[in-house]
Formats: sequence, C-alpha cells, structure tokens
Amino acid sequence: MAMGFVEGDVISALQKIFATDDSRVVVGIGDDAAVLATSAQTLATSDMAVEDVHFKLEWSSAFDIGRKITAANVADILSMGGRCDFLTASVALTGRETLQWIENLARGMKHEADLAGAHIVGGDVARGAKVVISMTALGHASTPILRSGSNIGDGIFISSLPGWSAAGLELLTRQVAISSPHAEKALSEFSAPTLDYTIDFSRATAMSDVSDSLLIQGQQIASASHVSLNFDEALIAQAPEFADLANLAAQLNLDVFQWIYAGGEDHVLLATGIDLPGIRIGTVESGSGISGVKSKVAPVSWSHFDESK
Amino acid sequence: MAMGFVEGDVISALQKIFATDDSRVVVGIGDDAAVLATSAQTLATSDMAVEDVHFKLEWSSAFDIGRKITAANVADILSMGGRCDFLTASVALTGRETLQWIENLARGMKHEADLAGAHIVGGDVARGAKVVISMTALGHASTPILRSGSNIGDGIFISSLPGWSAAGLELLTRQVAISSPHAEKALSEFSAPTLDYTIDFSRATAMSDVSDSLLIQGQQIASASHVSLNFDEALIAQAPEFADLANLAAQLNLDVFQWIYAGGEDHVLLATGIDLPGIRIGTVESGSGISGVKSKVAPVSWSHFDESK
Repeated sequence: MAMGFVEGDVISALQKIFATDDSRVVVGIGDDAAVLATSAQTLATSDMAVEDVHFKLEWSSAFDIGRKITAANVADILSMGGRCDFLTASVALTGRETLQWIENLARGMKHEADLAGAHIVGGDVARGAKVVISMTALGHASTPILRSGSNIGDGIFISSLPGWSAAGLELLTRQVAISSPHAEKALSEFSAPTLDYTIDFSRATAMSDVSDSLLIQGQQIASASHVSLNFDEALIAQAPEFADLANLAAQLNLDVFQWIYAGGEDHVLLATGIDLPGIRIGTVESGSGISGVKSKVAPVSWSHFDESK
Repeated sequence: MAMGFVEGDVISALQKIFATDDSRVVVGIGDDAAVLATSAQTLATSDMAVEDVHFKLEWSSAFDIGRKITAANVADILSMGGRCDFLTASVALTGRETLQWIENLARGMKHEADLAGAHIVGGDVARGAKVVISMTALGHASTPILRSGSNIGDGIFISSLPGWSAAGLELLTRQVAISSPHAEKALSEFSAPTLDYTIDFSRATAMSDVSDSLLIQGQQIASASHVSLNFDEALIAQAPEFADLANLAAQLNLDVFQWIYAGGEDHVLLATGIDLPGIRIGTVESGSGISGVKSKVAPVSWSHFDESK
C-alpha cells in the first residue's frame, strides 16, 4: 500500500484522541455504532468540507481544519438554541498525509468539541483523491428555535459582525501581506472561526447561523417566517469592529458590506426577537425577502473558492 | 458557474424526494438542524463512500450507489440489534452530474431508507473533484448487542453467505461476461447489497455486520469478547448458495473461500449465541483470534479497488 500506515493505525490513533469517560457516551468508538444517552428530542445536522473547496492544505493547519469543520457543525446546533452533545467524523484521506497530520486534524476536532461540551463518538476513514471531512452533530434543546418564528416588529440581531472570514480569504487569495491585528484576526477567523458560546439568544423568535452569508440566511428566515427583514446599514456601521473591518476593506479597495452581507463561513448567529442581546441591525417588517440593502453586493456563490476566485 | 444547476435546485429536489409526514421527524430538512423524536438511547454510525474507491460511475447507477451507501449505514444499526430511524446524507458533487443523476441517487437512498423504516432528515451538498457520499444513521435498540458479549460455547452464525459482492467486483474488474443467475446475483450484490431485515438475532451475545470481511469482523468480535472464533469450513460448505458461489469461483479459477472470508461489503450479519437462526459456521472457544481457517486467504486491504486491482 502507498500509505505509510494502515486503517487500523489511524483508527486506534483517533480512538485515543477522542477517548472519553463521559457517561452520556454509553458505547463509543469501536463497535458497529455508538450508543448515546439522548432525550426525547435530538437535534441533528451534517456538514461537509472538501479540500481545495472549503480549505487548502497550504493555507490551514490540520488542527485549524479540524476546528473549522467541527465549528461549522456545532454552529448549526447552537443556531437551533441547542447544545451540542455528540459528533461523528468521517474523513477521506489521500494517503499522502502523515499520521501526525491526521492526529492534528483529530486534535483540532477534539479542541472545538471540548469548547462545545461535545464528544466525537464515531465516524469512518476512507480513501479519496482529495481530503474530504464530513461531520454530523447531535444535540438537544429545551425548545428548538426555528427559522420560521419571526414576528413583525421583532428586532434583528447578530452575535457579532460577520465578514471576517471572507476578509481572511481575500487576503490569502490576493496574497496580500498586511501586518495588523485586524488582518491577523481575519486570517484566524478564516482558518478556524470563533463560535460564541456565551450569547443568550434563548428568547429569540427565529435564529440561524450565518454560514452561507447574512443575505442568504436572512432570506431564509424571511421566507420561513413570511416576513421581510429590513436591515439598517446605519446600525450595522455602529457595530463594534465595523471600523476595523471597513479599514481592512479600504486597504484592499473593497466595500466592507460585500464581506458583511455576502461573506459566509463566519458562524455568527442571526436572530430575531424583542430586546435580545448582541448587535441590533434592523427590524422585522411585513412583506418578503430582505430590504434596506443600499450597498451593491455581488451575488453569493455556493461554490467557494474553487471557481469564483 | 459550471454546474447546470445551483445548490438551491439540488436542495429543493432532495427536499421533495426525502419529504415525510412521519411524526418522529418533528423538523426535517430546511432548518439549521433536524429535530427528531428519540428515546433514552440513540445508536449512531457514519459511513463514507468515495467515487473510484467504493463505487465507479460506469459500473453502478446513481440509484444503486444511493442504495449501497444507505445500506452500509443501516447495516451498522441492524448489527447492534437496532432499528434505523433517521439518516443524514452529505454529498460532494463534481458539477458534471445532471440534476436527474442526483435525483436518482437520492431516490436510491430513499428506497433503502424505506426498506429500513427510516427517514433522511438532513445533510449537506458540497463541491468536490470526485463524488463523495457520507451518511450518518441514527437508530434505537431495546438492548444494544455489542461485539464484546461472546461466550465460550456459543455457536457462530451468519445471516447469509458472504462473498457475493466480492464475486461481483471480480466479474467487473476482469470484465468477464458470465451469463448465469449466479453471476447476475453477484453483480447485483456488488451494486447494492441486500440487507436481511427478517432474521431475528435479538438473542445474540455478540454481533457485527460483515462490511470489511468475515475475517476482520470475526477478529474484532474475538478481540472484544476475549475469545477465539473457530470457523468450521465443513459447515460453511453446507450453507445454502455455497455451491453456487463456489461454481462461480471455479469458473474464474479462484478459491471461493477468498470471497467468503475476505470479500467485504456484503453486510451479512455475523452473530454468536445459542441456537440462533441463520447459518451456523462454527463455535466460540477459549483463546484469541480466528481458528479453523484452512484455505489460503490473501490479506484483506482496506483500500478497495483503487490500488489492489
């Protein structure tokens, strides 16, 4: 075999890294399926990341790649008002990876899972021409918060300003070296986004994570709730970090609202409701779709950086 | 974009195919996560299939590819003594697929999920250089049957004879056209294996599905249970279908036990216990590993047909 290790080596390395004595994991990795302590309702979501589409091996460490895909899965549970309990991770490997690279990928997953209070309880290892990572997150919520609950008159809130990941991608794509804490933050958010576990959106009427972009997820909430989301750019411009991100955009001759509206991959939470914490960016009104967008925003592509850049 | 469709088209097509009004699916596809009715214990397993490693587009229809990966996931739940309730499906697509091909893939998944009594409740669609399908199956069992429960003196049982999938792969790889019902069965089992939902292994002391091979999963049960699995080739040779499979092997100048022991991808259930149904093939004894294998068996590779063939 071309690989310097066999499947068994990989699986036992992962088994050690993902080991847990949490009693919720009745049977962990090593049998045909995991046996998990669950409640009457379980939240489930899956997210896949593909080499050269969602990440590039020369741009991100294995640890950061592991963190990022785990964060993407956990974020979908958080955005239901839930807590993530368990994750499975399936990985296609090319055979060119070292065992250390694979272990670092697993450690990144474990790092982010630990932050979420979750355990990695199973998965699969396969061969592939490119690295592909597919995870499933399971969680619970006392009352799941859907996209469909927005009421006319609700405020629109975000947990933090989106756009940093897109800014980092822009810096990497253009190979621009800007030495500033804001450029550092952009690069770091692109490599492995920070999830906010502290914000309390439990009273939100509707919620989603801004993984595709503020515009796409805003439209989804508007559509599911049969309302219009009216963004207020004056409010957005007052957000903490707006000036920093706008400054970075100006250095690249870009409109900061392109990143904020259409960036994606930030895993910021977008919520509607009355007097929520976070940053208010608008109001729910009657109608449909998004209104209030004054900046020219190029269409958002789902195809990431394999085609559009 | 190079694709003749956009992500939204794919997702709404899948949403229609996977639609269900089963009350266990509280919230299905369309929000950040599915909300599922679960019990105190949930079984979870994940399995990934990669183009040109686990399937070839010229050998299998989209429908059969969808069936096969779904069956692989469901089989891991059945082999815990469980029933599969829910599945998520994440798919990387190259952009060269037609929407019809994608819909047929989804219909194959749905067909197999229906047989299992399960619903596809979520997933992801991504871009990739090759088609990669990753599924997670969730299920329940009153008492999960692990690999670790075998007792000395138990019989060893299989739900049916494994090796048919390997036989089909051999026919396809060698491009041998044998016109017989047994060759047809081999090709069909390779394209989409038949799961046995009727066999009652609920009294098994240990169980696994033979997805990697009878030898590998037998060794795993032996290791987890701290026993030896003593196979009896005279018993195996009495199995229904043995003569048919042996006849096919003889036509290709192969030892049928290579397929039976080392084939893999059959999703036959391997169980130990007293007076179980199915086909008895040996006895659990003290010791470790597998004994009783008289045929010469080439080592089993995990890398499927990308390297070894």
